[in-house]
Amino acid sequence: MVDYVMILGFVAGAFTTFSFLPQTFKSIKTKSTKDISWYMLIILISGLVLWMVYGIIIGSSPLAVWNFISLLTTAPMAVLKLKYG
Amino acid sequence: MVDYVMILGFVAGAFTTFSFLPQTFKSIKTKSTKDISWYMLIILISGLVLWMVYGIIIGSSPLAVWNFISLLTTAPMAVLKLKYG
Repeated sequence: MVDYVMILGFVAGAFTTFSFLPQTFKSIKTKSTKDISWYMLIILISGLVLWMVYGIIIGSSPLAVWNFISLLTTAPMAVLKLKYG
Repeated sequence: MVDYVMILGFVAGAFTTFSFLPQTFKSIKTKSTKDISWYMLIILISGLVLWMVYGIIIGSSPLAVWNFISLLTTAPMAVLKLKYG
């Protein structure tokens, strides 16, 4: 039987993760991150790690997988910020 | 007994929700949303609704509560975008 609830979780994660991709692409393209705050990046990355751990503990694969993917798409922002300030 | 897993979920949500508050405050203050795309807002709001529904179905109160709060903080962005373009 198809697990509709899990599908719902995976679609939800696709939406929220993809909604932030344009920001990462924009920063890669413009090589400019001065308007991005370290404060925001650190809080966001910490939150993604915590959600991932929470997802693993409660056994929600959409939560664990999507927060890991979000970390992969957010990490380049921190690297660019380190590089360009 | 203290439910550490639920506390973890609530801390995770506080982090990811609060990391986006500066954007909403900035838009309210500058009354300018021209650099915010409708595409991003619609995908983000849809994703938050889906995560909230997923959270309710799997019985995760941190997911349900934080995505509802994120909707409350993201909705003003859509209202400002409608008003200022």
